Amino acid sequence: MTGQVSRRQVCIIGAGPSGLLLGQLLARANVDALIIEAKRADYVLSRIRAGVLESGLTELLREAGCGERLDREGLVHHGFSLAFDDRTHRIDLSKLTGGKAVTVYGQTEVTRDLMEARAALGAPTVYEAEDVALHDFDTDRPRVTYRKDGVTHEIACDFIAGCDGFHGVSRRSVPERAITSFERVYAFGWLGLLADVPPASEELVYARHARGFALVSMRSRTRSRSYIQVPLADRVEDWPDDRFYDELRLRLPQDVAARVTPGPSIEKSIAPLRSFVAEPMRFGSLFLAGDAAHIVPPTGAKGLNLAASDVHYLSSGLIEYFAGGSRAGIDAYSQRALARIWKAERFSWWMTSMLHAFPDAGDFGARMQLAELDYIASSPAAATVVAENYVGLPF
Amino acid sequence: MTGQVSRRQVCIIGAGPSGLLLGQLLARANVDALIIEAKRADYVLSRIRAGVLESGLTELLREAGCGERLDREGLVHHGFSLAFDDRTHRIDLSKLTGGKAVTVYGQTEVTRDLMEARAALGAPTVYEAEDVALHDFDTDRPRVTYRKDGVTHEIACDFIAGCDGFHGVSRRSVPERAITSFERVYAFGWLGLLADVPPASEELVYARHARGFALVSMRSRTRSRSYIQVPLADRVEDWPDDRFYDELRLRLPQDVAARVTPGPSIEKSIAPLRSFVAEPMRFGSLFLAGDAAHIVPPTGAKGLNLAASDVHYLSSGLIEYFAGGSRAGIDAYSQRALARIWKAERFSWWMTSMLHAFPDAGDFGARMQLAELDYIASSPAAATVVAENYVGLPF
Repeated sequence: MTGQVSRRQVCIIGAGPSGLLLGQLLARANVDALIIEAKRADYVLSRIRAGVLESGLTELLREAGCGERLDREGLVHHGFSLAFDDRTHRIDLSKLTGGKAVTVYGQTEVTRDLMEARAALGAPTVYEAEDVALHDFDTDRPRVTYRKDGVTHEIACDFIAGCDGFHGVSRRSVPERAITSFERVYAFGWLGLLADVPPASEELVYARHARGFALVSMRSRTRSRSYIQVPLADRVEDWPDDRFYDELRLRLPQDVAARVTPGPSIEKSIAPLRSFVAEPMRFGSLFLAGDAAHIVPPTGAKGLNLAASDVHYLSSGLIEYFAGGSRAGIDAYSQRALARIWKAERFSWWMTSMLHAFPDAGDFGARMQLAELDYIASSPAAATVVAENYVGLPF
Repeated sequence: MTGQVSRRQVCIIGAGPSGLLLGQLLARANVDALIIEAKRADYVLSRIRAGVLESGLTELLREAGCGERLDREGLVHHGFSLAFDDRTHRIDLSKLTGGKAVTVYGQTEVTRDLMEARAALGAPTVYEAEDVALHDFDTDRPRVTYRKDGVTHEIACDFIAGCDGFHGVSRRSVPERAITSFERVYAFGWLGLLADVPPASEELVYARHARGFALVSMRSRTRSRSYIQVPLADRVEDWPDDRFYDELRLRLPQDVAARVTPGPSIEKSIAPLRSFVAEPMRFGSLFLAGDAAHIVPPTGAKGLNLAASDVHYLSSGLIEYFAGGSRAGIDAYSQRALARIWKAERFSWWMTSMLHAFPDAGDFGARMQLAELDYIASSPAAATVVAENYVGLPF
């Protein structure tokens, strides 16, 4: 073939937070990995995503040498509130979990920190790679090919890490018969609005309301991120900022609604809600990680954190392999990752089920939601179930 | 009108365990109550129902003077097991709830003890009352009429207690517009088999299996009660004993299945599963209690226990009223009872959802069940949520 042929230990497909974090952990352990990304760096950075980090992820970021700005600017949250029936019940995360907490720090910021750290190490990333294709990963000599600036490149490697998200090429490269997929698609989406106004609450408020779910969140003390459940057929154009704020306030308890500061949207988008798991997560020399293998609905903020636990298992397995040759870590990867993933899928599905309006579930279903919330508010054990999942089950 | 006219403080409609327990508590407090039952006493006694009593109910039975045989013959259970994926996980009720337990003692035995205690007190029960009708309960001079042996009777009273079950006349007497109903009907039933053989397990085993739910239960050390989930369209004739035992064993973990002793059925029946709540539970001078106001699916054994908490609230309210004239207890009845009912409805619905096969929920739904069970097996907080509901939330 015409073009450039080279060799790496690992090819990472995708330069989102999963791929970048994996690349960073590998680079610091002297594993030679190339990241190949189809989009431009500024496009990756422009995607507004999650903002609640479990301690497992923050520790991994520190381990990756990316903890400095996080520790300076991240907001440590020791609790959040569930709102229903015009009242709020605080989940005291730290009290219920023996001192654990979460950190509010935008995914965009995580990505930026990881990009800068990678640049500082001089580790290679190819952006705007076209026609990325995975080859021979059913052998121990897999290859990745792509085109860049008209030149075809071929990378021979020991392993490929598919970190390119739900719509990426990695999972699609696996023969369909080799994958078992589990999926639930919800009949609604989240309309999110980002604005440079102080958040209505110092901590997140997850609100269950007959009109639909609402969430008051933040990226910093001066930047709010709010969400409302909307029908999937709705378009962003249907929701001018004024209408969004009116609806948000209707769904919040009065005291929280009163503290909503409307501000012009910097970003406004509708994201569908989906539960998805592909099993297994390893196919010969190809490992899937993060959204490439699983999607959770955003209720409970598990998406990015789940990618982090995948990367933890995968990076430690690969580092172990290249350091001493033991395959134990990579052989256990799929099973270890999936055990934690199913628990997070359960939590995300459950939080989604408890907090959103489901017209098909009828009046009985609505009462089950209220009974569940009322029970959580009255039982320390039930509140602990919420808290220990929210801060993140152990890796 | 022709016939007998008399006067009582309270008319209790229905001589099942709710009506009998209420009657017994009232009689011991010198409140004059007549129980009116449409069926024969031996018919009431022949109905095979629940057999797991919360401590709230056993204490109430002792308070009613019916604790002697219960304390002698009842089996105190300090735990039960959840079975899934060919393994069992024991819920240590006593350890998780600070020493609480449940008592295995058949509902039939409870009914028999209550009947005998009522007879010993000489308190009146009318069996085989025809055309029972409730009148004027929107006033403070309600009446109940019925026919017995061709003679029409009219009882004037202060209050009517509707303890006559889901299909009884009491709730049906309330104008439809005055009731808000919540209902979920499940697409399957429980086929139960009673046999005089030792149970396969000393404690109950609730099994989740892809083929459907199964439950190994008992009424005594020599009498087994087992259940399997079956389609609603199935008839008892479709399930000869051999087929029942074969199917039961397929759904149990191997070690439990190996201990199943097949024995000829004494009783075999299919019961549909339903969640139902009618709000409110008071209409003027009429109070509903037990199955007349709410139904739970049997998963979690809450039906009889929930009737007991209703009777506790209602009897104490009525006794308070007749003793001193305070209406506080009866005025609070509906709200107090419903607060506990919704929590038990939630638990019963959740246990049902987690343990039964729901073809419509797909593979993802099945995995959510397994993830939930796996989580319960791994988290003391989640196990406590199961345990504290199973032993019964406080009255």
